[in-house]
Amino acid sequence: MSSQLHSVLAPDSIAVIGASSDPTKRGHQAIKQLLADGFDGPIYPINPKAPEILGLRAYPSVTEVEGPVDLALICTPARTLPGVLADCGAKDVKGAVVLAAGFSETGAAGKALEEETLAQARAHGIRLIGPNTNGVFNLHHRMNLVGVRDAETGNVGIVSQSGNMMLALVTEAQRRRQLGFSTFIGVGNQLDVRFHEYLEYFGEDENTAVPVLYVEGFKNGRQFLDVARDVTVHKPVIVYKSGRTEAGQASASSHTGSLAGSFNLTRDLLRQAGVTVVEQSDKILSVAEGLSLLPPAEGDRVAILADSGGHGTITTDALMESGLRLAEISDETRAALTEILPAQASLANPVDVAGGTDDNPAVFADCTRILLEDPSVDLLMISGMFGGYAVRFAETLGKAEIETSARIGELVRKYGKPVVVQSLYATHKPEPLRVLREAGVPLFIWPENAVCCAAECVRYGAARRRLKDHPPVVAGRARAKAAAIIERVRVEGRGALFEHEAKNLLAVYGVGVPKGVLIQDDADIIAAEIFGDRPLAMKIVSQDILHKSDAGGVKLNVRGADSIRAARSDILANAGAYDSEARIEGVLCTPMAEAGVEIIIGVIQDPIFGPVMMFGLGGIFVEVLKDVAFRAIPMSRADTHEMLDQIASRKILEGVRGPPPVETDAIVDLMMAVAELAQAHPEIAEIDLNPVIARADGLDVADARMILSERTE
Amino acid sequence: MSSQLHSVLAPDSIAVIGASSDPTKRGHQAIKQLLADGFDGPIYPINPKAPEILGLRAYPSVTEVEGPVDLALICTPARTLPGVLADCGAKDVKGAVVLAAGFSETGAAGKALEEETLAQARAHGIRLIGPNTNGVFNLHHRMNLVGVRDAETGNVGIVSQSGNMMLALVTEAQRRRQLGFSTFIGVGNQLDVRFHEYLEYFGEDENTAVPVLYVEGFKNGRQFLDVARDVTVHKPVIVYKSGRTEAGQASASSHTGSLAGSFNLTRDLLRQAGVTVVEQSDKILSVAEGLSLLPPAEGDRVAILADSGGHGTITTDALMESGLRLAEISDETRAALTEILPAQASLANPVDVAGGTDDNPAVFADCTRILLEDPSVDLLMISGMFGGYAVRFAETLGKAEIETSARIGELVRKYGKPVVVQSLYATHKPEPLRVLREAGVPLFIWPENAVCCAAECVRYGAARRRLKDHPPVVAGRARAKAAAIIERVRVEGRGALFEHEAKNLLAVYGVGVPKGVLIQDDADIIAAEIFGDRPLAMKIVSQDILHKSDAGGVKLNVRGADSIRAARSDILANAGAYDSEARIEGVLCTPMAEAGVEIIIGVIQDPIFGPVMMFGLGGIFVEVLKDVAFRAIPMSRADTHEMLDQIASRKILEGVRGPPPVETDAIVDLMMAVAELAQAHPEIAEIDLNPVIARADGLDVADARMILSERTE
Repeated sequence: MSSQLHSVLAPDSIAVIGASSDPTKRGHQAIKQLLADGFDGPIYPINPKAPEILGLRAYPSVTEVEGPVDLALICTPARTLPGVLADCGAKDVKGAVVLAAGFSETGAAGKALEEETLAQARAHGIRLIGPNTNGVFNLHHRMNLVGVRDAETGNVGIVSQSGNMMLALVTEAQRRRQLGFSTFIGVGNQLDVRFHEYLEYFGEDENTAVPVLYVEGFKNGRQFLDVARDVTVHKPVIVYKSGRTEAGQASASSHTGSLAGSFNLTRDLLRQAGVTVVEQSDKILSVAEGLSLLPPAEGDRVAILADSGGHGTITTDALMESGLRLAEISDETRAALTEILPAQASLANPVDVAGGTDDNPAVFADCTRILLEDPSVDLLMISGMFGGYAVRFAETLGKAEIETSARIGELVRKYGKPVVVQSLYATHKPEPLRVLREAGVPLFIWPENAVCCAAECVRYGAARRRLKDHPPVVAGRARAKAAAIIERVRVEGRGALFEHEAKNLLAVYGVGVPKGVLIQDDADIIAAEIFGDRPLAMKIVSQDILHKSDAGGVKLNVRGADSIRAARSDILANAGAYDSEARIEGVLCTPMAEAGVEIIIGVIQDPIFGPVMMFGLGGIFVEVLKDVAFRAIPMSRADTHEMLDQIASRKILEGVRGPPPVETDAIVDLMMAVAELAQAHPEIAEIDLNPVIARADGLDVADARMILSERTE
Repeated sequence: MSSQLHSVLAPDSIAVIGASSDPTKRGHQAIKQLLADGFDGPIYPINPKAPEILGLRAYPSVTEVEGPVDLALICTPARTLPGVLADCGAKDVKGAVVLAAGFSETGAAGKALEEETLAQARAHGIRLIGPNTNGVFNLHHRMNLVGVRDAETGNVGIVSQSGNMMLALVTEAQRRRQLGFSTFIGVGNQLDVRFHEYLEYFGEDENTAVPVLYVEGFKNGRQFLDVARDVTVHKPVIVYKSGRTEAGQASASSHTGSLAGSFNLTRDLLRQAGVTVVEQSDKILSVAEGLSLLPPAEGDRVAILADSGGHGTITTDALMESGLRLAEISDETRAALTEILPAQASLANPVDVAGGTDDNPAVFADCTRILLEDPSVDLLMISGMFGGYAVRFAETLGKAEIETSARIGELVRKYGKPVVVQSLYATHKPEPLRVLREAGVPLFIWPENAVCCAAECVRYGAARRRLKDHPPVVAGRARAKAAAIIERVRVEGRGALFEHEAKNLLAVYGVGVPKGVLIQDDADIIAAEIFGDRPLAMKIVSQDILHKSDAGGVKLNVRGADSIRAARSDILANAGAYDSEARIEGVLCTPMAEAGVEIIIGVIQDPIFGPVMMFGLGGIFVEVLKDVAFRAIPMSRADTHEMLDQIASRKILEGVRGPPPVETDAIVDLMMAVAELAQAHPEIAEIDLNPVIARADGLDVADARMILSERTE
């Protein structure tokens, strides 16, 4: 175990600071619960007055305890914290759970107290959970410092920014049975330990198959992504993110900026790191139960085995709507099914047994074997009322049903493919379903929950393969030529690169940008010589004119020397009229891009997650429909391909409006180059390539904008 | 009661045809259940051999029964049906429930048997439920002909095309408690009675507050919409439609046509008729329970009262995502809340009591009163853990909590506003929550379910107001001038109108269409005189050339006599080269429409629902994003306004891309004119106005296409 939190969350000894004889106090309840659960180690009540609490010898201070103390549960008020932590430090306590509220959330004095508390903890190397937490439990360790009743022991871990959310999950799990929890942590104010560290702990914790995190806000988003990538390669991680709809940085200066801070960004980045993002709280347990049991799916081809037309149809609808595919089952499979199913059965996928199992549930196991055997099936869903035949038709079927369940369980083990069961009897959970669940098959009452679980199992499988096979490309150092361009901007005291500078920077990183010529005065008009009769775009270049069109600073489709000269004069005159103080660099001439699909590629420095790339189609798609994809940088080519696939308007890239499909390789190359550039030059706060014109034969970066961060040195 | 089905679904007497002494047979189980439940009327076992079954006198034929027989439950095989129905007819039986399968679903012989069966039923005026149904129950009437166990009696009605779906709902309701059912009907093959007639029955049934329909396919969609409009004005109706993803008529000839047949069309039309469309089967019961209890909301402004930050946040997220609004609570409300809540409470909406109720739940009732009193609040959601304080904090709080529940119940009655409670203790349902539920407050464990219920309550309220205040505009007879245009097309043996004819037809119904001139030969070139130097669109007019652009038959921005002449020659030459046999009517010249937003307005004759209008934005919005709205014709102006509001791309109409907002009144006028035209001329199978160019100062119908139905007389 490398996580520091091991001795905090699975301590050998506990001191309860603020222990009490009053049964309404947490400092009493916690000790009582530890004793009742049989916590396997010394418990030290700390109380300056009482000699004994609940039959245990009490100590006036933690420093008086003879043996070592791993964890202190601190039940005393906020103001006592610095002193208490000093004692804990003297005693070499490894970690503390701080229940008290009244820190930074109450104002300046609380903020100062919080800082002092943190300083003490850091000085003594004490890891601190909370403050303002409702506690932690580790049920395998028989340590329940929350006092929640009847929590089932199991393999789902919870880290929550809301104590009530944990309570809701525990309460709901009681109804489901066969689902339980390993460790819970209420993160409270996250003064010291934060989400990524808890996740690191769960990654190592053998008792936790699936950590579930309820997050209102990340403080260390970038570290969380880094830890998540490591954990999800071997263990599924579920995040439910609340506070989703306040989003959007209204005052951002670019399209990319204005779409950052949204829930979509968080969701995309978490999924990039292999995290399972659940968007409805009522699905958290379904997905957690599913992922705790199922192997990751090897693909998205699903077979459905149904004994109820209605439920089979709903399952199919939900499946298609969630983006999964119906497997095309092979002729061999079909032939084998024909042998055992009645004539009226449907052998297409979904396979509907059409009453073929009503009096002989064993057929279900045979169908399961045949479908799992088929290499074109990645995941099997059984839908309808399996497990309830004895309830529904005849009690005499019960024995055969239980045997069938046992056989299906063996098949699940043998083939290693995920199998999900939806049965309308899942609430009642008769014996055959209990046996199935015991064998590792998740059960759901409603098709939508079963499909949600299957979809996340498929998504997790794909993410895991991507993370294993396509690690993010971490870029090398900044290239000197690029650094020189940026340095010149700094020297000239500008906050942003001129368009031609931004394009030159892209060129340093291997992007083919259209040759541009900056013309400054009459003597300098060489554009006509260079470009001949090609139509040009001409734009004012001035650090003081941000909105070039508004200033009359743009002329398009300019052709030939005379027109270039006239356009230059117009642009300079317009710019002068717009802002007579504006410092004019010149007029940039570039060949007009050929027609194509407008796309946007942007990079921002997200305050939570660091450098993030955005991709979308230009114009209304970004502005109105907000149809964009985000990924954290560094990223892999597989990530960029997924971005292109993710947007709703992807069909336009495929040429649905007439033109041939655009060359996606060129887009991917450009995105990877931009990612490299962003890594090599973290001083670039924002990149906005808008528009990039993508065509079947490549692309043109028609406009490029880069903003530098404020110099901090 | 005007529905014919009353004596079938609430019969005074029942004959069981195919009654049996064998306990495994439905003809035995049904009688046993009727006796056990105390059915209040005579039960007549019909069996040619047994003199007595389950202690009741049996009759060899239904014709031998002395008293009248309202309902026959027919348990005999398919082949016996014509004979059995003849007997029932002789006995004046009002209705029959036919369990047998083996009709049209088995092939030609079954189809013939089905037709004979229907003919017999019709001849004798017997209403027939099924065949191939799992039966019906009416629990208030103590008539359970399905044999489902433990179904709670209540006010939710079910009509289902899947017996297992009913079973799933009944099974799940047992877990919820306090939720029960009135009448269930398994529709089977819908040979005679169909969905709209069952809905009519439920509209009148006093025991049913909310009918729930599980529909795989409508046979009489248009009648269903008509009945639904009548029922939903006084009673909510819920439909879950399955079989959603096979949709789309691939071979349709227009954009409108290709998007018809989709689930979105069905959903839009049902909602237009006031129906609550639930899209996830696991939400059916939540919504049914909610709508059975709540008054329809008067608006969409929601107040949230939370005692758990986490749940309050999730509720807010779900609320915003479902399109509801947070009420802006008044200063008076805020002042009143300040009086009773602790300083740390949040008085913005959501109102977070922040521990202010932990030791005094009564504050909850005061907050409820204050928020319901506020006229800016249409609906109140209470979120967190109310009802569980005694479980969570101290048992001594139980009494106060129960009293608080009773007070909230009184407030709900007094203010008549919907109140929805989400509590993490809703599964356990401790006494305070039982009391709340008894008072008509629906309870949910998860915020998403509570919000789903609230959203449907708001939607239903809005639909009810729309249906009451804005009845569909039913158009008068066809106008003679329009009929003459269509007649000419018929006489010439054409299946479609030429563009100029379609536009003339629109003009007859008051649409201002751009003046067009059809030029045919040199002598006929008068376009230049009429249009002067205005830029024109010129298009080939030929019944044999459907794809005018492909044939080189379109020239745009043509100006002046010389260019017109040249363009005409080109177009005719191209058309001749494209198809030398094509009959050429001429070349249509119309002024180019000024730039604006492209929209599409279409009408199709849906095979299930009859005339349906589609609205969407042109180009990719229809083709790629399928961002369109549908409404059944006749429709109201309120319907068209809702269509404009419904599309995701509506912001483009509002001018987000720079231009001023388009004149929506002009669009609404056009849609209402098209609706009138479609009603007046049902022989028009398809209308496609694509594109219509909408601007701030009106609109132009740039292209119009109308196809006639095959003549059937």
